[in-house]
Amino acid sequence: MSETPRIAIDAMGGDSGPAVMIAGAALARKEREDLAFILFGDEEAIRAELIRHPALASAVEIVHCTDVIAGTDKPSQAIRRAKTSSMGRAIAAVKDGTAHAMVSGGNTGAMMAMAKLALRTLPGIDRPALAALLPTLGDNDVVMLDLGANTECDTRNLIEFAVMGAAYARVVLELDRPRVQLLNIGTEELKGTDELKAAAAVLRDADYLHMRFDGFIEGDKLSRGGADVVVTDGFSGNIALKTVEGTARFVTDLIKRAFASSLRSKFGFLVSRPATRLLRHHLDPNNHNGAVFLGLGGLVVKSHGSANDIGVANAIGVAARMVSADITRRIGEDLANISAHNVPAAAQ
Amino acid sequence: MSETPRIAIDAMGGDSGPAVMIAGAALARKEREDLAFILFGDEEAIRAELIRHPALASAVEIVHCTDVIAGTDKPSQAIRRAKTSSMGRAIAAVKDGTAHAMVSGGNTGAMMAMAKLALRTLPGIDRPALAALLPTLGDNDVVMLDLGANTECDTRNLIEFAVMGAAYARVVLELDRPRVQLLNIGTEELKGTDELKAAAAVLRDADYLHMRFDGFIEGDKLSRGGADVVVTDGFSGNIALKTVEGTARFVTDLIKRAFASSLRSKFGFLVSRPATRLLRHHLDPNNHNGAVFLGLGGLVVKSHGSANDIGVANAIGVAARMVSADITRRIGEDLANISAHNVPAAAQ
Repeated sequence: MSETPRIAIDAMGGDSGPAVMIAGAALARKEREDLAFILFGDEEAIRAELIRHPALASAVEIVHCTDVIAGTDKPSQAIRRAKTSSMGRAIAAVKDGTAHAMVSGGNTGAMMAMAKLALRTLPGIDRPALAALLPTLGDNDVVMLDLGANTECDTRNLIEFAVMGAAYARVVLELDRPRVQLLNIGTEELKGTDELKAAAAVLRDADYLHMRFDGFIEGDKLSRGGADVVVTDGFSGNIALKTVEGTARFVTDLIKRAFASSLRSKFGFLVSRPATRLLRHHLDPNNHNGAVFLGLGGLVVKSHGSANDIGVANAIGVAARMVSADITRRIGEDLANISAHNVPAAAQ
Repeated sequence: MSETPRIAIDAMGGDSGPAVMIAGAALARKEREDLAFILFGDEEAIRAELIRHPALASAVEIVHCTDVIAGTDKPSQAIRRAKTSSMGRAIAAVKDGTAHAMVSGGNTGAMMAMAKLALRTLPGIDRPALAALLPTLGDNDVVMLDLGANTECDTRNLIEFAVMGAAYARVVLELDRPRVQLLNIGTEELKGTDELKAAAAVLRDADYLHMRFDGFIEGDKLSRGGADVVVTDGFSGNIALKTVEGTARFVTDLIKRAFASSLRSKFGFLVSRPATRLLRHHLDPNNHNGAVFLGLGGLVVKSHGSANDIGVANAIGVAARMVSADITRRIGEDLANISAHNVPAAAQ
C-alpha cells in the first residue's frame, strides 16, 4: 500500500496515560515521517502534551472522549462503552476505515472483547490470538502466541495460531518459510495434552502451508533461536512470556548486586559499561513492545501498560509495518489455503 | 530420627551414569559423614568408579542389576521391569525399609509410575507432585510444584499440592507458616481457569492449614522472593521451570557475548571475575538440583539428567534432609487436618 498509514491511538490507556502515548507517537514519527495519527481521549490533556512535541502536531487529529476503560473493568462492562470510551472509539476508527490500525496500552481483556465485536474474526478463524516478539540468541526474534487471549484452547485453535503466527513471521521477520514449533513439556510425540498431539499430527502433514513444522519445543529452548514461531495456549503462553521477563530482570538484578559487592567489581563494571549498556538494550522489554491481535478483520496492537515512550514508539512501529505489509489479507489467504485442504474445522 | 540415613542410588540413571552418580555420592558424604548408600546397577561399572573415591567405599553396599530404564522407555514399559531394573530395585528398597530415600537421574515418567505403584500415595492424596527449589532475590528459595508429573490437574489436586508444598517448605526452608500462591495469568479473582478459581476459594478460607495463602502470582514474580510456595499444574509448572532455566542461560550467554565484544569490556570482565563467579554460582542449576516427589508413602528424589557431581550431591542432600525431618509423616498430618475440616475430596 502506498497510502499514508493512519494509526488510531488510545491516548488514555497504559499506566501513564497521554504523556507516554503522545511522546511515543512523536518518537515513532521521527523514525517514519509518513505516519499520521488520530488521538482518542481527553482533548485538554492531549493538547497539553502536544505542546512538548510541536513536530507531531501537524500529523495528528484529536477525537475528544471523556470515558476511559480502567484496568479493573471486566470485558463485559467494557463492551457496553464501545461508543464512548477512547479505546472503543479508536477500535471503531479501524472498523470504519478512518484508521489503518489501532494501538492501546490499556486493559487487554477489554481490548480483545471490543476488537472481536467490532472487527470480527477473519473467515475460518475461531478465536484471535495475541502474538509478540521475544529476543533470542539467534539471528531473529521469535514470534510467540497466544500470550493470554485464550485461557483454554482446542486443537483447531492451535492449528489456526500456527498459521497466523507463520504469516506474521513472514512479514515481521521477513522469512519465506518460518520454522514453527508447539510449546510442550517434552519433545517426544507422546508428550503433552491430547490437543497438542492432535495439532502436531495435522501440522506435520500440512506441507502446503507456508511454514516448516518442527514438532515440539520445551521452555528452555525459547530463547535459543531454533524456532521462528512458538505456538501455545494463552495460559501457558502468558506464563512463559512473563517468566522470561521476570527471569531476565532477576538475572540483571543479580548482576547489579554482584558488581556492587566489592570495589574491584565496581571498577570492572564501570570499565565494561559499553557491554552492560548493550545488554540492557537487548533485554529491555520496551525494545520488544507491541503485541498484535492476530485473526481479526483489522489491525489492533497492545502496548505494555508500563511501557515508556520508546516502548510505545516500538508498538506503533509494529502497527505501521503490518499496515504496509497488508498482513490481514495475507493471513486470510493462508487460511483459505487450509480450508481448501479440508483440515477439520471442528477438530478437537 | 537418629538412625543413619541410608540412601538408595540408581547408579545407572542420568546422562553420564555411574561416574557422576558415584562422584556425587562421594561429595555428599564429605558434607554429611553420617550418610550410607546402597548403589543399584552394574557391579563392575560401579566398582570401577568406586576406586576413584576410596573414602566412599566403606559406606556403600552394591546391589548388582543389569537392567537399565532408558530415557525413551514409556512408563508402561518401565513398570514391567520394576523387579529387574536399577531404578525399580532402588525404589523397592525404600518400600521394604532397607533405604530411607531413593535418588535417580533417570526417566522421570518411569520413576513416577514405578514409585506410585510401589510406594502408593499417602491417604487422602489423589496424585503425587514433583517439587523443586528455584532461586529468588529474597532471603529464601521458592518451592514450586507440580513440575511435570501431572499434565492436567483439577481443583482437588491443586489444593493437595498447596498442602504438600507448604509442608515441604516448612522442612527445607525452615519456615513456620509459608506464603503460598497459585500461578495464574493475572492476580484478580476472576482470572484463570475454573479449577484455579475454585482452589483459591478453598485455600482462602482454610486458616487451619500451616500456610498463609496469598492468592495468585504471575510468571514475572516467581523470582522476586514474595512467595515461599508456588502451586500450578504440571504442564504450566514444567514450562515455567524450563523457561526460568532457559532465560537464565540466555542472559548469561548474552553477558558473555557483550563482555567479549571489545578489549575494554574483556578487561573489565577479568577485573570483575569474583562478581561473575558469584553470579554463576547462584544461577547454576546444579546448585538447585533435586526435585522431590511429594505425596508418596516414601521418599523419592529426581536428579536432573544432565547434573554434574555437585548437582547429584545436592539432590542427595535434599533426600537426606527430608529423611532427617521425617517429611512423609508431616505431610500425612497436614492432610489429616484438611480431611478433618471436610474439604470436598472430589471437588472439581
